[in-house]
Amino acid sequence: MERFAVGVDLGGTNLRVAAIDEKGKLVDQISIPTHKEKGRDDVIDRLSSEILRVAQRWASSYSLAGIGVGIPGIINMKEGLLVMSPNLPGWENFNIRAQISQRVNSPIFLENDANAAALGEKWMGSGKDGNDLCFLTLGTGVGGGLILNGKIWHGKIGMAAELGHVTVYPEGRPCNCGNCGCLEAYASATGVVRSAEELLDAGKASEGLKREAALQSQLNSAAIYRLAMAGDPSSVEIYQGVGRALGIAIAGFINILDMDTFVLGGNAADAWDAFANAMFEEVNKRSYIYARDPRRILKSSLGNQAGIYGAACLAF
Amino acid sequence: MERFAVGVDLGGTNLRVAAIDEKGKLVDQISIPTHKEKGRDDVIDRLSSEILRVAQRWASSYSLAGIGVGIPGIINMKEGLLVMSPNLPGWENFNIRAQISQRVNSPIFLENDANAAALGEKWMGSGKDGNDLCFLTLGTGVGGGLILNGKIWHGKIGMAAELGHVTVYPEGRPCNCGNCGCLEAYASATGVVRSAEELLDAGKASEGLKREAALQSQLNSAAIYRLAMAGDPSSVEIYQGVGRALGIAIAGFINILDMDTFVLGGNAADAWDAFANAMFEEVNKRSYIYARDPRRILKSSLGNQAGIYGAACLAF
Repeated sequence: MERFAVGVDLGGTNLRVAAIDEKGKLVDQISIPTHKEKGRDDVIDRLSSEILRVAQRWASSYSLAGIGVGIPGIINMKEGLLVMSPNLPGWENFNIRAQISQRVNSPIFLENDANAAALGEKWMGSGKDGNDLCFLTLGTGVGGGLILNGKIWHGKIGMAAELGHVTVYPEGRPCNCGNCGCLEAYASATGVVRSAEELLDAGKASEGLKREAALQSQLNSAAIYRLAMAGDPSSVEIYQGVGRALGIAIAGFINILDMDTFVLGGNAADAWDAFANAMFEEVNKRSYIYARDPRRILKSSLGNQAGIYGAACLAF
Repeated sequence: MERFAVGVDLGGTNLRVAAIDEKGKLVDQISIPTHKEKGRDDVIDRLSSEILRVAQRWASSYSLAGIGVGIPGIINMKEGLLVMSPNLPGWENFNIRAQISQRVNSPIFLENDANAAALGEKWMGSGKDGNDLCFLTLGTGVGGGLILNGKIWHGKIGMAAELGHVTVYPEGRPCNCGNCGCLEAYASATGVVRSAEELLDAGKASEGLKREAALQSQLNSAAIYRLAMAGDPSSVEIYQGVGRALGIAIAGFINILDMDTFVLGGNAADAWDAFANAMFEEVNKRSYIYARDPRRILKSSLGNQAGIYGAACLAF
């Protein structure tokens, strides 16, 4: 009997639960709103019901290898605690592993969501053919995951791959983390909007960007991407800035770890066409290792399913 | 019978050959000038004679575990070639492993010198008590070595830990590697002298630094260190700049790898007292992981013997 695993992505907005077989075939998937405003017990109750439902539905065709769960935030791997999560306020120090485990009556594997997504891309996505993988997720913030020798690299206290908080411009914009000039302040969706606001405030914005700002109550990175692809000069410049910041950071990762594969995921990576050229140019300039032996820097092929693949992979 | 290994550090200036036992006791050590101007065959001949002499001298008291050699430059680990070495011009693509191996009639372990020094510090030096180690060597340039899970991390083509070429100031000074703003351009002995020259050229140097420059045909980093420790304002500022550049880089390494131990070696690390405060301040500002859980950032305890310890360790 072939094995399958249940992979869960517990996000601040959606709960995804999937059944994936050992060969990486997605056999079942559901997605429901998280409704985190109803409180963590309610979320865990509903999530656990969905896990049980999916697990039972496939129990006659496959044997269950295990259940893996990816969650946003810092995890104490030893205790199974969610130490801190900006996306799940009020869940600090919540013993999420024990809570789900009790309800589904089975051990579960817990992992940070970006680490899980990295593992998913390594297993079944753009990172499939590489030895190692550096995964960057570009969304509201910038997160990351490192796969070294086929395994997630956690570091001393499980906080490795905080790639969004690597300094790219020492005198740059303040970041929520207290530092200034972090990659996240430039290459996230929020960073894109900040770049636009800076141009508007300085009176240096193009007519197109000014028009967009006047039409919207709040600028968003997807609209600026569309403007960039239509040739609006300010929007082109903004996304070149995203590419440069990414390029400085990725060149650093290559110089430090000499890795072969880099995958960019998250919604903001959809603007690939607007930032990729500037990114490659910067990596080539700032890493003679890359210039000597170019690496694969790719867009995620699993998109927002990377997390459930990775969570399932944890269980195999 | 206890085992021992021969550890070799083949530097551009000196050849060091040592006998070290399994417990890390240095039982024998010789150091002779490299005289690289005599050509690579001559250097390899003399080096091999010294290896044989040291090996034979201890062969009655110990059993020989093996011979390890650290060399500056990029190594093709598979073939045992020295691909490129700025310190050993004319040695490009030289099959150094086979050449030594033939002469000493024994297999040898070849490693990049900074990687070997990192391993030495992990085995018997400041990195002894850590899980992982990030080693930085501050000399004419800045090199590095990473020990992950107890092993040297080589990366895809053996070029990992080019830590001196991580960008710290994107718009900074040009570096020999073709990039600008590399750590090496600020935190090496050469970088210190460049900082002094920039202050002098801009007419912003203190009286003390001007006097030193007038006395010497060529400024050197050790003299600037002495001035800094005596309170000379320009020299203090220069070494604070070294500390800031190191701090930006090390904060990045922590954010990427969440490592627990960092060791700074090389001659320029002797100026520790002049740069350490600025370095710690910068790391604390730029890594909230460090701010949450401070890491050990230490001066090398093995100094210029780290390389022979690491080379011997390769053989055990």
